[in-house]
Amino acid sequence: MSPVSVAYANLLSSTLGEGKGTDPARLEGDLATRFRDAHSQVEARIEKGEMGFVRLPGDEAMRRGVQEVADSFGQWFETLVVVGIGGSSLGARAVTDALLGPHWNEDSDEDREHYPRLHFMENPDPGSVSDLLARVDPRRTLFNIVSKSGSTAETMAQLLVVEHFLRERLEEEQVRGHFLFTTDPETGVLRRMAELRGIPTLAVPPAVGGRFSVLSPVGLLPAAVTGVDTAGLLRGAAEVESLCRNPVLKENPAGILATLLHAADVEEGRRIHVLMPYHDRLRSLALWFQQLWGESLGKARGVDGAPTETGPTPLPALGAVDQHSLLQLFMEGPPDKVILFLRVGGRDNPVAIPSLHGEEPALSYLGGHTLDGLLEAERRATAEALRRIGRPSAVVEVERLDARALGGLLMLFQMATVFAGALYGVDPLDQPGVEAGKTLTYGLLGRDGYDVPSLEPEDAGGYRFPLAAASEPSRNP
Amino acid sequence: MSPVSVAYANLLSSTLGEGKGTDPARLEGDLATRFRDAHSQVEARIEKGEMGFVRLPGDEAMRRGVQEVADSFGQWFETLVVVGIGGSSLGARAVTDALLGPHWNEDSDEDREHYPRLHFMENPDPGSVSDLLARVDPRRTLFNIVSKSGSTAETMAQLLVVEHFLRERLEEEQVRGHFLFTTDPETGVLRRMAELRGIPTLAVPPAVGGRFSVLSPVGLLPAAVTGVDTAGLLRGAAEVESLCRNPVLKENPAGILATLLHAADVEEGRRIHVLMPYHDRLRSLALWFQQLWGESLGKARGVDGAPTETGPTPLPALGAVDQHSLLQLFMEGPPDKVILFLRVGGRDNPVAIPSLHGEEPALSYLGGHTLDGLLEAERRATAEALRRIGRPSAVVEVERLDARALGGLLMLFQMATVFAGALYGVDPLDQPGVEAGKTLTYGLLGRDGYDVPSLEPEDAGGYRFPLAAASEPSRNP
Repeated sequence: MSPVSVAYANLLSSTLGEGKGTDPARLEGDLATRFRDAHSQVEARIEKGEMGFVRLPGDEAMRRGVQEVADSFGQWFETLVVVGIGGSSLGARAVTDALLGPHWNEDSDEDREHYPRLHFMENPDPGSVSDLLARVDPRRTLFNIVSKSGSTAETMAQLLVVEHFLRERLEEEQVRGHFLFTTDPETGVLRRMAELRGIPTLAVPPAVGGRFSVLSPVGLLPAAVTGVDTAGLLRGAAEVESLCRNPVLKENPAGILATLLHAADVEEGRRIHVLMPYHDRLRSLALWFQQLWGESLGKARGVDGAPTETGPTPLPALGAVDQHSLLQLFMEGPPDKVILFLRVGGRDNPVAIPSLHGEEPALSYLGGHTLDGLLEAERRATAEALRRIGRPSAVVEVERLDARALGGLLMLFQMATVFAGALYGVDPLDQPGVEAGKTLTYGLLGRDGYDVPSLEPEDAGGYRFPLAAASEPSRNP
Repeated sequence: MSPVSVAYANLLSSTLGEGKGTDPARLEGDLATRFRDAHSQVEARIEKGEMGFVRLPGDEAMRRGVQEVADSFGQWFETLVVVGIGGSSLGARAVTDALLGPHWNEDSDEDREHYPRLHFMENPDPGSVSDLLARVDPRRTLFNIVSKSGSTAETMAQLLVVEHFLRERLEEEQVRGHFLFTTDPETGVLRRMAELRGIPTLAVPPAVGGRFSVLSPVGLLPAAVTGVDTAGLLRGAAEVESLCRNPVLKENPAGILATLLHAADVEEGRRIHVLMPYHDRLRSLALWFQQLWGESLGKARGVDGAPTETGPTPLPALGAVDQHSLLQLFMEGPPDKVILFLRVGGRDNPVAIPSLHGEEPALSYLGGHTLDGLLEAERRATAEALRRIGRPSAVVEVERLDARALGGLLMLFQMATVFAGALYGVDPLDQPGVEAGKTLTYGLLGRDGYDVPSLEPEDAGGYRFPLAAASEPSRNP
């Protein structure tokens, strides 16, 4: 039995009404053919070893290596701080937020079964960084520095701040014992420093990019240290990976998602793809998906080099709360969205709603239901309200929120992303558009070899309100 | 001196290049005229008393009433739980996340100056609700139930769960003392229950809708209970409100924002409006803005009744982390976005980056800067990289993140929203599109007077993968 399922009737014209959504006959016609082609492009790149994420679920040696490091460190430290940004933190956060829950760090040692507390140092926001450092015990904290290249400005700056923090509080020779680097197996400053100073490391496989690294040591180490069932995670991923290697569109859940979302965008202009879990613990998964889908498909040029400026905009949402924020726009705004509901089938404790105040009609109908049932009624009602006005949605579902199901979800979305890349005709593995900003940042900070760019001031020409403020810049980088 | 400033050169063709952005001459031409008209429509509705949020900053009696309730309750309780969803929580969360910071609840009583801990019960997620209730001491917890109508299904269900929780743990006559209702001054189930049982209440002024309620008792009570300077908050809001009553476009910061964002959407198809603070504590403000902008402007019909299906999609982002997630799409994807940077000018502790490992070029350039300087360099570099390829942005800036500045920001965005409503030709105060889903939810839950809707199953016709799962629905609402 697959750990994930996909219900997609509400993406089809047979359900939405003539001229809206995709004609289901095409799933065995032109779209099946198009998908077969996309599938073979992806298979060719897997064959060439370019899509390393596909191989991770079967890499038992890698998993065992991570688990050994985790088991040894797990005994020594009270707190793990993951220092990383973007692909170096979003996957680990998606996994641990889903499986540990929001109160892990407030739990007692006993409730955590003596697994460490877990913090993420992502943004180089000075308030957040100094608040966090003020709260951890340097003698009992491990800093996992994660950067494949070892050149990420934010993470390197935080590394320097953390090293200074440790040096001030520990003996010189103790400092290195509080670091664990996750980086390229051969090159980069983190690799060099680790070798020079004897800092333990984990390797990001070369063919695994940041946003596809959740099942590599990047995501597995924080999971393993906090007691997540990494074997279950990879088992679920392997099951879904195997389903997604199928060239037959209707038998490939990632193929179905990629094909129907791509068609909705390019054929109907539904270019905003909303991922809306109805489960608080999956909010971080939606943020992980946002990077995966947006950075992989948002490309100025196709693989053929032709200008394209393509790519859907992924919008994370949360049910039911965003019914009270975004649903008005989804229902009545431009018909430019597809909603992907994410549903968990069952809960250990659905929480009964007691029958109180039966005399009040605004309360009495609720008694006897559960909060879980209320959430699911809201989700179904939202899907149906959208369907009735011809607006498309789909449901990705897992039976229970456990490691296996989560591994399945992570693999489903990664496979859907590379299929979508092939359908859009872009390379889902690169991100050339972020280089310009990096170079300008280096220039602004005076890094050797980078010009100080002549920046157009943003308030040039007096286009600022109020005008007086323009003359006193409060801060120089 | 205005507590907020707006730098908008990067929205203009003079900066972005011919054919991109708005010709600055129009700010004193057709756009000035169009804004004058929008302004007079808004003024007319303010005059008629329909836009209650404008009057809140000057309502000192309201503020004092809230403060008195807060001062009395603040002494008795260790924890405040705000039970509300959408407009009943997003504003309070934006204020308290910005001014209390992320570790408030972990701080000691002394560090919190004996102000209560603060939790939000928003989603009726059974895991979150039961986790939270397991963590609070019922004898020392106040539940602020917030629903203007008193009919919000999620909030009413949570009220029943909370009441049951309290009844099981306290004496019958004590229960009512742990509730504070914020609701309509006259009607609704909360108002009735409060009168029947002697539960203290605060009133949401009738002409103040949910998403415009942050400066009413809805947002002020949680702020006041946790020691936020509510007078400062309203003072900043009043200052900006007064600036935003000016009919001259170039002298009205909310007018500038509304006019240029509207023009970017309808004239250039830049329909995704990104609000991207470079400050962790302002992440929740971006979520508040998302509801405000999306729910106010996303409308199927204009005020004239004609079909329109209009409204930009607001996308919250966070700098610098989302440079590692969304920037690729912003740079290379479709030219359908405007980025609104949100910047805080100064910090108490910018956090020095130490000069260590000077032999490593990937590290040495960072030493001597601060984390705050790094963040600002990243923001400027991002704005400049976008500008160089003709992609628009603007900067909303406050000098310091304090109550006054936050009040200013809240008022700026609310005024921009009602001006934008006039420019789009829609009513920014209603939300007719959410009714269909509510009615269907009532039907699914068997509320009297609502039909059980005949739902199209989402997996109708076998459009589900894997097929087998379709026959066993795991949960009935």
